[in-house]
Amino acid sequence: LAAVVLDAPSLRAFARGCAVLGAGGGGDPDLGLIMALRAVQEYGPVEVVELADLGTDALVMPCGLIGAPTVAIERIWNGDEGRMLRDAVEGLRGESVGALMPYEIGGSNGLLPVMWAARLGLPVVDADGMGRAFPEMQQQAMHLAGIAASPVVLTDGRGNTVVLHAADNAWAERLARSGAASLGGVCAGALYCMTGAQAREATIAGSVRRALRLGAAMGAQRRADRPPAIAQVLGGIVLVEGKVLDVERRADGGFVRGSATIEGTGDDAGRELRIELQNEFLLALEDGTVRAAVPDIITVLASDTGAPLVTERLRYGQRVTVMASPGPNLWWSPEGLSVVGPAAFGYDVEYAAIPTGADDGTR
Amino acid sequence: LAAVVLDAPSLRAFARGCAVLGAGGGGDPDLGLIMALRAVQEYGPVEVVELADLGTDALVMPCGLIGAPTVAIERIWNGDEGRMLRDAVEGLRGESVGALMPYEIGGSNGLLPVMWAARLGLPVVDADGMGRAFPEMQQQAMHLAGIAASPVVLTDGRGNTVVLHAADNAWAERLARSGAASLGGVCAGALYCMTGAQAREATIAGSVRRALRLGAAMGAQRRADRPPAIAQVLGGIVLVEGKVLDVERRADGGFVRGSATIEGTGDDAGRELRIELQNEFLLALEDGTVRAAVPDIITVLASDTGAPLVTERLRYGQRVTVMASPGPNLWWSPEGLSVVGPAAFGYDVEYAAIPTGADDGTR
Repeated sequence: LAAVVLDAPSLRAFARGCAVLGAGGGGDPDLGLIMALRAVQEYGPVEVVELADLGTDALVMPCGLIGAPTVAIERIWNGDEGRMLRDAVEGLRGESVGALMPYEIGGSNGLLPVMWAARLGLPVVDADGMGRAFPEMQQQAMHLAGIAASPVVLTDGRGNTVVLHAADNAWAERLARSGAASLGGVCAGALYCMTGAQAREATIAGSVRRALRLGAAMGAQRRADRPPAIAQVLGGIVLVEGKVLDVERRADGGFVRGSATIEGTGDDAGRELRIELQNEFLLALEDGTVRAAVPDIITVLASDTGAPLVTERLRYGQRVTVMASPGPNLWWSPEGLSVVGPAAFGYDVEYAAIPTGADDGTR
Repeated sequence: LAAVVLDAPSLRAFARGCAVLGAGGGGDPDLGLIMALRAVQEYGPVEVVELADLGTDALVMPCGLIGAPTVAIERIWNGDEGRMLRDAVEGLRGESVGALMPYEIGGSNGLLPVMWAARLGLPVVDADGMGRAFPEMQQQAMHLAGIAASPVVLTDGRGNTVVLHAADNAWAERLARSGAASLGGVCAGALYCMTGAQAREATIAGSVRRALRLGAAMGAQRRADRPPAIAQVLGGIVLVEGKVLDVERRADGGFVRGSATIEGTGDDAGRELRIELQNEFLLALEDGTVRAAVPDIITVLASDTGAPLVTERLRYGQRVTVMASPGPNLWWSPEGLSVVGPAAFGYDVEYAAIPTGADDGTR
């Protein structure tokens, strides 16, 4: 593999890819992109290190924002949160952090670790914990692999730092959710810290390169041709083209829950798709039938800009293209589905993986 | 001063004193007494160490329960919480804890540190942070003295421990309140850890002995004569004798807020006293006039048992004696009133200290 760096041009492509993989969640990538661009301009580009090249004992620090996306899109970060997380983790572990990793490759959470890595002069690992965005902290490949989320470090970047030593990863999620709420609704967090040897077994490999490849393919196309470009790279399908007929969202226990209805237009006239969301788009239903379901990735693209929309940006009357792309194979295992399948979100539905294949061997 | 130990007989007196000083808060002392009695039976009595006898560098760990009293009265502790707090504090400070201290001398929070001290074989300092009970964590003599509450350690005693490094003591309160809520509504906590030299300047001295003396004086009297015994030791006054006409309580942001109305009986027939409460009894009003106000200590005694009632135990129709006793002088300073005066609780009232004097030189 050729060495990859994240600099201004590649960051723009990376952000497009993260937006698709975010499935409407992970935070609005626009703000993350601006902060990451400024950081690489000031501190230089960020090296992307492959899992195979990580030292066996290198300490990997998964990180990102934790909390309500409705708040995250209105909050500006000073950039120093990554250092606070790093310092706290090093104090707890008694060793130096060797690399950062986005705990989720979706949305803003793909980009903020790059900003922090630029400022710290550290590389970013070509991997993540989700292969997309998910709402909860135990929905991580590291959790499936038996790594402890604790000690979890949270900071508001303004002098408050919280360290959680949880009884298990479900408690870590619960305590982190509450900690984020008390730190202003959203905070920076580091969790599931592990060695390079563990990261090789316990993460989803190639996430950064996948987002980059996806974003580059999108960038090479006119806006109208972005859905086919995404479909080709990820093995996705278009579910419907239409306009937003209704959006219902409510803040609920640190999450945003709700649904959106898309009315088909053009060739899709007469069809109606309902999307259920919990921070991310999780379920697409048509005439009572599941068209796509988590862990597959549901993406809503604005027809006018070709840009993926986060759940908070969905508005009545918007023209959109709804796509579904295969989620990582890991999550379609029985163990994976128990953590991130529709039932894990309280949806009692029959579901199946979308019937496609990506060009990189992903299901 | 003769050496004082807390053993089975003295713990019973101590619990009575803590109940009065709790001003209706600090948690129901009955449960704390049972746990402390069992601990001294199993591990031996607890030595009470005077501030003057503390080593200059001895690490003092103030501790107790944090959270909603409505939950606290229904939760049983396994007794190992003190060790978890101690271990976490020692890990953070890199030195051994030399003594525990009740952060508040009121209610159950006067007794639980004694239980933990018995199990750890450590002494308890003859001091506390409040001289009574208050609802918030920054309402501590240590806060007035400029000691940092952080790092605050919280544990549920069931495998979850949270460490808070707060920007200031107001943030420490906010984060601790939220942490307690996420740990089941109430948790064990250690905060404002300090050296012996600091404790001599930054705490309210003699609190354990005061509670013991008060409880002994009460125990020597028949139930009907307990109010005069309390009045004599603390310099308090009886506000009214009557029955509970109305109680209104609601859980609100980790606190219990509400009010109670007492209708005078006997010599007090025709009078009506309203008590405002926020975890503790804070204000006593009659005909629009303040009869007693925080930081003075309002205590409601059940007429049938002579026992002080915590706010959660107040019930319609109960026969009660309402007393007010002088709060520590420290809190009647301008700085003290800014932290614990009626205005700090949102009461816009004219107030004055009750016009009495205690037998130990307290105002």
